[in-house]
Amino acid sequence: MHLGTLSLPDNQTRAALREGDNWILLEAADVGALVANPDWRNGLDSARATGQRIAEDEAALLTPIQRPAKIVCCGLNYHDHIIEAKREIPTFPTLFAKFADTLTDPDADITITGSHKVDWEAELAVVVGSSVQRATPVEAANAILGYAASNDVSARDWQSRTLQWFQGKAWDNTTPLGPVIVTADEISPKDGLEIRADIDGEVVQRSNTRELVFDSADLISYVSQFTTLRPGDIVLTGTPGGVGLGMSPQRWLRDGEVLTTHIEGIGTLRNRMRLSASEST
Amino acid sequence: MHLGTLSLPDNQTRAALREGDNWILLEAADVGALVANPDWRNGLDSARATGQRIAEDEAALLTPIQRPAKIVCCGLNYHDHIIEAKREIPTFPTLFAKFADTLTDPDADITITGSHKVDWEAELAVVVGSSVQRATPVEAANAILGYAASNDVSARDWQSRTLQWFQGKAWDNTTPLGPVIVTADEISPKDGLEIRADIDGEVVQRSNTRELVFDSADLISYVSQFTTLRPGDIVLTGTPGGVGLGMSPQRWLRDGEVLTTHIEGIGTLRNRMRLSASEST
Repeated sequence: MHLGTLSLPDNQTRAALREGDNWILLEAADVGALVANPDWRNGLDSARATGQRIAEDEAALLTPIQRPAKIVCCGLNYHDHIIEAKREIPTFPTLFAKFADTLTDPDADITITGSHKVDWEAELAVVVGSSVQRATPVEAANAILGYAASNDVSARDWQSRTLQWFQGKAWDNTTPLGPVIVTADEISPKDGLEIRADIDGEVVQRSNTRELVFDSADLISYVSQFTTLRPGDIVLTGTPGGVGLGMSPQRWLRDGEVLTTHIEGIGTLRNRMRLSASEST
Repeated sequence: MHLGTLSLPDNQTRAALREGDNWILLEAADVGALVANPDWRNGLDSARATGQRIAEDEAALLTPIQRPAKIVCCGLNYHDHIIEAKREIPTFPTLFAKFADTLTDPDADITITGSHKVDWEAELAVVVGSSVQRATPVEAANAILGYAASNDVSARDWQSRTLQWFQGKAWDNTTPLGPVIVTADEISPKDGLEIRADIDGEVVQRSNTRELVFDSADLISYVSQFTTLRPGDIVLTGTPGGVGLGMSPQRWLRDGEVLTTHIEGIGTLRNRMRLSASEST
């Protein structure tokens, strides 16, 4: 099942379910509001029968979860990125947080003013479907709603100002999410999905989600030891090798470049960079 | 002006304004909902004239801001704590985030299961009163609603597992906030307020908010360069020297101990520790 949040002409938003080449509108403002109702699956049959349909090529997709209460991100979680960053394979996941404001739409421009070192990090996002607290990995796996693509676009100059990465990672409207959420019954990142980032069509990251050190269930289980995760909460699983920070010479995004993030079986994010203080190296 | 959020007998909560020995109930579920309305000050006169009053000693105070969208915390921000942690006076503030779920009430028990090294960090909390984006320190100062006491209770074993502190800092219901918000016209942390933490009556931290490296306005200005702060958002300004991590031998909170956090002109938090995996050293 593919779930999305659509922008409607009257400035409203609606959760929707993809069927063939159409989106069927559901009775919720976004996928977050949809899955907050534990009975949400019960309404799907009647929506399929009578819901308003919008052709896929006329639908504008937004961040599927508009206001997640929690976004927890994992760093250093792909074997190849860990090697690139010259670090050891970790015993524990390295975690930090973003805010709902950090998210942006699958095809939005990303505007950053005040960073000279904007970098890309293609990531698999996991969306929580039911509440978990001190969950085992098996319980955590059962609590996964589905998966989306994301890009943890980072202001490396701010990230490296202090020991804590947060200030390079929580810029408003810089982390695209989507384009849809593919439910966990349809794809298995653990079995392997290609993940890729391109800049103006040039491939810069290409790896596979089976390279994750801590998989989606491991991360949800771990985080749930200290904080409850609820429907609509998001875990970003980290990025593979190929970021600009790890290149020699280092490379940063330039104003006007289009960053494309693709995960097999999920879809593609396309975000043009609007950078007013960027450097080419 | 002292603002608080009260628990009422019917499981409801209400924002309230202190007047003498009474709390006057206001038309909002908490101080966060109150200040989300930019005209909130206009309603105070009629509340003073006709609002329901509750005697101070019959009022149960809750976290004044129940669901802040953003809690940004600063580490290494008191001269004495920086020396204790054997670090340099910083050029930039070290920042990390907490979630709304991390907060707890001014007199709540703090329950932590799964950490062996629970430590205390008395902190001044700053509450944002109006939206700020890329604000100067002067604009930031004007956007401050007021101040509360807080304690960034930390699971040091989790905090030190990886480079990022977040996982030791975001345990549900571990950061008390309150007991009230004192508005910025009444107190000036920059001019000096004593800040103190006691364990079962023994003073472990005692410093003054004039020792802050980055003051409240500096921090709000800095954070607002990358993320918009809005009414009800919270900035924790860091802790002075005297934490258990810095003692020799190191000292951790024990099950049953009462942690008291006091800031001059604001008030006192009293939190009993409920630790099921604590160590005495």
